[in-house]
Amino acid sequence: MARGGAELKLLGTWASPFVLRAQLALSFKGLSFENVEEDLRNKSDLLLTSNPVHKAVPVLLHGGRPVCESLVIVQYVDEAFSGAAGPPLLPADPYEHAVARFWVAFIEDKLLAAWQKVFTAKTDEEKAEWMKQTLAAVDVLEGGLKECSKGGSFFGGDHVGYVDIVLGGAVPWVHATEVLSGARLFDAGKVPLLAAWLERFGALKEAKAVMPDVQRLVEHAKMKQP
Amino acid sequence: MARGGAELKLLGTWASPFVLRAQLALSFKGLSFENVEEDLRNKSDLLLTSNPVHKAVPVLLHGGRPVCESLVIVQYVDEAFSGAAGPPLLPADPYEHAVARFWVAFIEDKLLAAWQKVFTAKTDEEKAEWMKQTLAAVDVLEGGLKECSKGGSFFGGDHVGYVDIVLGGAVPWVHATEVLSGARLFDAGKVPLLAAWLERFGALKEAKAVMPDVQRLVEHAKMKQP
Repeated sequence: MARGGAELKLLGTWASPFVLRAQLALSFKGLSFENVEEDLRNKSDLLLTSNPVHKAVPVLLHGGRPVCESLVIVQYVDEAFSGAAGPPLLPADPYEHAVARFWVAFIEDKLLAAWQKVFTAKTDEEKAEWMKQTLAAVDVLEGGLKECSKGGSFFGGDHVGYVDIVLGGAVPWVHATEVLSGARLFDAGKVPLLAAWLERFGALKEAKAVMPDVQRLVEHAKMKQP
Repeated sequence: MARGGAELKLLGTWASPFVLRAQLALSFKGLSFENVEEDLRNKSDLLLTSNPVHKAVPVLLHGGRPVCESLVIVQYVDEAFSGAAGPPLLPADPYEHAVARFWVAFIEDKLLAAWQKVFTAKTDEEKAEWMKQTLAAVDVLEGGLKECSKGGSFFGGDHVGYVDIVLGGAVPWVHATEVLSGARLFDAGKVPLLAAWLERFGALKEAKAVMPDVQRLVEHAKMKQP
């Protein structure tokens, strides 16, 4: 089985939590890859021809063949490089697999969907309402971590798995949000398991190798604010 | 490997395209199951305790263990009953697997998301705009069918696969929409592959066995209209 290298090219943007998922998957599988920074105001021909449907990042090119959409990329990396150095991201057991996918869908549809609206809300009231819904989703996810980890340190149990990677994409933004607004999404007083997970995940060398600098994200977010 | 029977119980509602996905997956895998009709205005304790996060159908109970969310259920059925009578729904090849997941996400996020808004739009202008976006997504999906089928009859190639099941959940509503408004979503003049797929899929005995009656859906939709 290939170990990546020149045959793996990732089209992305450095601040995107979705691109970070792909980078985390590659990093935790121990695969080297070429990172190509896209300018979304002036997309490359390679991006446009690789993802003609969405014209969006991330796109992983494996031996020239494009794989699009962050969740699809994470699963593809796990399956295509099943013999790679890192442990499997997805559980082999069908029921555990289903449980992992359930919580990934929850993170997408409930937690991140609400949190994104905090950033785009037009009034302070709307912002507060979406933050309330975000924190309610975080509360529920605390139970998900308990269910998935079975006493281990990660959603994947003893090692980082699919759910860890998907939530991991948001980790730098969890820290940036605290700097920007003081809001602590994973508050140890309310969600002790997730608060411990946040520290533990961020301290792993595979995560550190690809996560963007929080202060740079903060500056980026300030520039984008209306 | 088990063949379903009393150990497989599906909590659902007869008119839901999402529940139908689960029924189609079970049917195409040749598995027998107990179908339990839920009253969503008065949810059963079994539903509430089986899916405490979303309190929604479908839920598949396999030997008492709940699997929630339609896409998760379809994949679970495929993996847990890999030795069942029907062919595998998901391709074994990681790249083909990724392509199938890509088009499933497209059906969810673009086609069905726009189409659902046709039903909930408040003005005729909004309705027309969402129908335009729905048809634009159908146009793109025509290319997806070409890519996935590789000259075969279905998204899964020579047999029904994951994408067929997910789109198949909407088939009765495609017909009901035509009766209700005259709108032909899969028009042979515009999307000949999808139009042929619609007829071919609906004619399969495994699909017929679980699909609701179109006229009953039409009456149901008329009753729900404001």
